[in-house]
Amino acid sequence: MKERIIVPKKRVFITAEASVTGQKEKRGPIGNSFDLSGDDRFGKDSWEKAEAEMQRLAIGIAIKKANLTADNIDVIFAGDLINQCISSSYGLSEYMIPFLGLFGACSTCAEGLLMASVYSTYYRRCAAVTSSHYCSAERQFRYPLEYGGQRPPTAQWTVTGSGAFIISTEARDLEHTESEYVPEIVEVLPGRIIDRGINDANQMGAAMAPSAADTLTRYFDSGRNPSDFEMIATGDLGYDGGGILCDLLTSSGIDITKNHTDCGLIIYDRESSDTHAGGSGCGCSATVLAANILPNIKNGTLRDVLFIGTGALMNTMSLNQGQTIPGIAHLVRIRATPKKELQKLTEEVMI
Amino acid sequence: MKERIIVPKKRVFITAEASVTGQKEKRGPIGNSFDLSGDDRFGKDSWEKAEAEMQRLAIGIAIKKANLTADNIDVIFAGDLINQCISSSYGLSEYMIPFLGLFGACSTCAEGLLMASVYSTYYRRCAAVTSSHYCSAERQFRYPLEYGGQRPPTAQWTVTGSGAFIISTEARDLEHTESEYVPEIVEVLPGRIIDRGINDANQMGAAMAPSAADTLTRYFDSGRNPSDFEMIATGDLGYDGGGILCDLLTSSGIDITKNHTDCGLIIYDRESSDTHAGGSGCGCSATVLAANILPNIKNGTLRDVLFIGTGALMNTMSLNQGQTIPGIAHLVRIRATPKKELQKLTEEVMI
Repeated sequence: MKERIIVPKKRVFITAEASVTGQKEKRGPIGNSFDLSGDDRFGKDSWEKAEAEMQRLAIGIAIKKANLTADNIDVIFAGDLINQCISSSYGLSEYMIPFLGLFGACSTCAEGLLMASVYSTYYRRCAAVTSSHYCSAERQFRYPLEYGGQRPPTAQWTVTGSGAFIISTEARDLEHTESEYVPEIVEVLPGRIIDRGINDANQMGAAMAPSAADTLTRYFDSGRNPSDFEMIATGDLGYDGGGILCDLLTSSGIDITKNHTDCGLIIYDRESSDTHAGGSGCGCSATVLAANILPNIKNGTLRDVLFIGTGALMNTMSLNQGQTIPGIAHLVRIRATPKKELQKLTEEVMI
Repeated sequence: MKERIIVPKKRVFITAEASVTGQKEKRGPIGNSFDLSGDDRFGKDSWEKAEAEMQRLAIGIAIKKANLTADNIDVIFAGDLINQCISSSYGLSEYMIPFLGLFGACSTCAEGLLMASVYSTYYRRCAAVTSSHYCSAERQFRYPLEYGGQRPPTAQWTVTGSGAFIISTEARDLEHTESEYVPEIVEVLPGRIIDRGINDANQMGAAMAPSAADTLTRYFDSGRNPSDFEMIATGDLGYDGGGILCDLLTSSGIDITKNHTDCGLIIYDRESSDTHAGGSGCGCSATVLAANILPNIKNGTLRDVLFIGTGALMNTMSLNQGQTIPGIAHLVRIRATPKKELQKLTEEVMI
């Protein structure tokens, strides 16, 4: 138990997922897989309101895809990058679902899934939601968009998107699923705060990579092997951070180079999108998980996946005060469980 | 289960608590009960660094009082009011304990205890930490201190303080406690986001009172009665918000006027402290719980307490954009369990 991996006491399934994005994401390699892509304003008069609206839409779609109503959801875990996580509070208030706010920066999607897996001991259906918006993030963390600041090659592009997930222990919630496999969360592992002294806000991948290395080292210390997984997907280390992670692990004798990918490299085409080191933000890992990884689990392409949300735990003032950027990385293991196996589970419940 | 009250599957005890505050709190009615009160800078060159330092000190003292080391703690739940919760990430990083970041605004203390109770199904020892600082909060949420803005009578005073708690399922952790009773968390209930249209940042109590009323109504719908509790303590509704809460509940036929109190009214003397409507901030409920409520549970003065953390889920930009202030309130029920009963529990484990 030293490594503190949690195996949920009840079987926990992701029974529905939804992704809502902006236009740049729509034009990317997985653009056709999102449930909804609007113009980046989503009918609102500020970027912050648009981001909240994406969360409202995403959870609404997820609940509908799960054949449920808001009243069936016992608790929502949500958070985002905007100061005091207002995208979540304004976006989700109309649903009147009990709400537990998270702050994990860009690791929030993984943190929410982790939370839902643990709370499934008590609650039948939990939801996890998060979002980010390029325009609200840029003006909060870096420069006003109108300033047109130049971005260095290591900079990443904050994804305009929101992902929502329904996590259920109810076998009957799976009856409506048409896929051959169902995504099951089988293990989760909370990360530690790791600070290796990076203080450049345009080097977020480098700041977060050591925390991902720490979490994966703790995870593989348990006897599991990188080769057990078809995909080891970090949230938003991007091109540079992903390379640093692989190097750090290789130097400790752990080789993930064959199966490592990063959601920030899946969502945009590096050559044509002008995003430099790839995507980032809470919405990056959330929309890629919802629109790309989970569908590939459901169709049997991926059978066993490690999903590692990565977050940078700084703010603009802490950097101005000369502080460095601590990172965190939470791990969620998602397995493809054959639908057949679940039919047996449903029958057992029926009996 | 409609009201979604969680009764922890294992017995969960608060085995240690710590409070660290500034000077104004030290001069208040419970000033002698805090574990440590420094000058408000805590040896640091910024208010934000001072706030992080308070968290570092508080968790350190709590771990020591629990006769443990950092390595014994399986996970920390923490968050605060500062943008991106940096008081928690910078304050707690040196301990290298797995970390799950929360954002519940001033409800964070209750949210952390709630989380710890749920995670106790998997982890033996959890910690919950939070903080606020008058100077870091004022300049972030309202005006630079140097401006000397006048405060209306409904304004509250952000507490400079941090509270930390160790939550354990290990009966042997209780052996060193000398008190006749041990605080046991017996029920928790996550709140819902409630927005009744308040948009005045100097009326936080009024903005949060409806969410406290919602949570308490859901709780008492379960058949429990206000008279079952010696104390129903809200986090930081202050003088005005507390009155609004009592009025709202009375109009629904629930009378908590006899046993309701608010941590914001316990920490400062209203007459002499110039705090107007009382204390507020994450540190308000956390330090009052640690230094006043829990000691009174341990000495048998209080046998059954409802502790309701209250939070306002806005930021300065959302108010500037014309949005109203949503509130949230999480409930934790803490009971005085006789030490004798626990000795039996320890013996059972020994056998």
